[in-house]
Amino acid sequence: MALLYKIDTNKDLENQKKFTQLNQLVSYDLAKVNDLIKKKVKNHIPFIEIVAKHLINAGGKRIRPMLCLASAKLCDYKGKKDIELAACVEFIHTATLLHDDVVDNSNKRRGVDTANKIWGNKGSVLVGDFLLSKSFELMISIKQSNVLKILSETASTLIQGEISQLLTNNDFSTTEDSYLEIIKSKTAKLFSTSCQVGALISKKPKIYSNALNSYGVNLGMAFQIIDDLLDYKSIESETGKKIGNDFNEGKVTLPIIIAFHRGNNEERNFWIRTIQKKQKKSGDFEKACNYINKRNIIDDIQKRAVHFGSVAKDALEIFPNRKEKKVLLDIVDFIVNRNF
Amino acid sequence: MALLYKIDTNKDLENQKKFTQLNQLVSYDLAKVNDLIKKKVKNHIPFIEIVAKHLINAGGKRIRPMLCLASAKLCDYKGKKDIELAACVEFIHTATLLHDDVVDNSNKRRGVDTANKIWGNKGSVLVGDFLLSKSFELMISIKQSNVLKILSETASTLIQGEISQLLTNNDFSTTEDSYLEIIKSKTAKLFSTSCQVGALISKKPKIYSNALNSYGVNLGMAFQIIDDLLDYKSIESETGKKIGNDFNEGKVTLPIIIAFHRGNNEERNFWIRTIQKKQKKSGDFEKACNYINKRNIIDDIQKRAVHFGSVAKDALEIFPNRKEKKVLLDIVDFIVNRNF
Repeated sequence: MALLYKIDTNKDLENQKKFTQLNQLVSYDLAKVNDLIKKKVKNHIPFIEIVAKHLINAGGKRIRPMLCLASAKLCDYKGKKDIELAACVEFIHTATLLHDDVVDNSNKRRGVDTANKIWGNKGSVLVGDFLLSKSFELMISIKQSNVLKILSETASTLIQGEISQLLTNNDFSTTEDSYLEIIKSKTAKLFSTSCQVGALISKKPKIYSNALNSYGVNLGMAFQIIDDLLDYKSIESETGKKIGNDFNEGKVTLPIIIAFHRGNNEERNFWIRTIQKKQKKSGDFEKACNYINKRNIIDDIQKRAVHFGSVAKDALEIFPNRKEKKVLLDIVDFIVNRNF
Repeated sequence: MALLYKIDTNKDLENQKKFTQLNQLVSYDLAKVNDLIKKKVKNHIPFIEIVAKHLINAGGKRIRPMLCLASAKLCDYKGKKDIELAACVEFIHTATLLHDDVVDNSNKRRGVDTANKIWGNKGSVLVGDFLLSKSFELMISIKQSNVLKILSETASTLIQGEISQLLTNNDFSTTEDSYLEIIKSKTAKLFSTSCQVGALISKKPKIYSNALNSYGVNLGMAFQIIDDLLDYKSIESETGKKIGNDFNEGKVTLPIIIAFHRGNNEERNFWIRTIQKKQKKSGDFEKACNYINKRNIIDDIQKRAVHFGSVAKDALEIFPNRKEKKVLLDIVDFIVNRNF
């Protein structure tokens, strides 16, 4: 009974096309970003390269660098700073993933063993630091003070978001509002910065950089809401099948915040036992999925994501209608409807 | 028999005076640095402030910020950037200490429980990240591109040094040369940068910034050589008494590199068993100290430190003779002769 949803292959294929559109729009530049990333992790200490590449090659979606490149294109940017910035945001993201896996004691990410599983926490902590320092070298190379300020503040905000999340683990006094605040810091801020810098390097009027900022932050909110939902929305797919990481780690994310609030006494006792008291037994994750399903939470969370997606779309409306705008609008739908 | 050296109280008091001199020279500005540090770790998440202050208040020597302030004074600097830079280098240092303690699984630092012992690795990793991000915010606020470049490269170099050190743990193929390379990255680089930026913000000719760079790197080498020596140079002092952290962690530092090379078969077998094979038993640390003592290693390492100290002193010679120069020259002697 953990398999709540079957893949609607046609719908998923349609959705996948929207992601492919974005990929095609930026593919030429994205190849340059990947080259720059490889160049930057090249090191006289082979260990650094091995650990960094393990994660970088594991095939993340590269959504942040792609948003950065597409936003710069939307702003008619013609220089090369977008390549460096795209690599920079991916480095910030990758550094935090390495540290996240230490913090969460995770064994798997993107279907492969985590760096901390293979090389121990020590390597993940230090190589994460290394990638963070490289992201700073990249942002400095841009030589534009407003970009530098936003990026460094973003790194700081992101880390504060991670800390806030850590502190809400196993804690059902966490409200939906505080959850939204946390994902704004830990996820949406880097999305918004990735988009906003595209306008800043293009020296576009403030109305455009603000618009991309608003687009990015709302897209990021939708992204994380769906990400947290997917952890409970098990699907019949070999690669996409979830094993309830968040549940096992006692993370208090939106699905269980709502489930706790909507639940009857029996359900609340279940959440208290499994999450707050950390007393889990076999079959608990399936039970959790059932409770979430029973309370119609998946559809309602999807609607929450649609809400943020709508705000994101409206923010882009001031831009003239053209290919880049269409792709960025479509990516909102992709993110809201994705199953992976 | 672990107590190899008795404190020579008079000599130590004399030495302490040299440190006090530096402290007095910069005390007015150092108070401002401490205020800025407190302001920067103030956060809406109380946990961040608690963890950060735990380490910041534990009473490090603040040697790096003091060097930064004194170097700026030596260059007749009249602005306020030195305060921000001094806080910045202390933040970089503190962030790496937090991560170091995770990497080394340490329980004690500066005589108190480490943050990871009290709050777990998670807090140390993330609050370390937070402090690193704050150091970047500080360096950016200086708005001087050459300073920014050097500081960000320093952070990156420092982390690479930490990684290199991690990789030499338990490995007796580490030579004195590779040890020197590692401490140059992990310690001396931040010392040299702390000094060099004093000249850069003063817009002094290159000959002066290079001189301070050379002074700092050699002082930093001496500092780390003595630091590693002190781990084996147990002394009859309640606060200063060492418990052989490096030995227990299998760190291949200079005292045991030389001891291994100079040792006879019995001694080499001892080092292989305890460090390489990690098979330690009660009394091994005392035995290690005895072997180091027997091979006259403490005096010879002291001479190595004196060598780097001499280069540091000569580097400063191009500066006119005045109080600041004298204090910086004296601090070399303090560092080489310190017992804590």
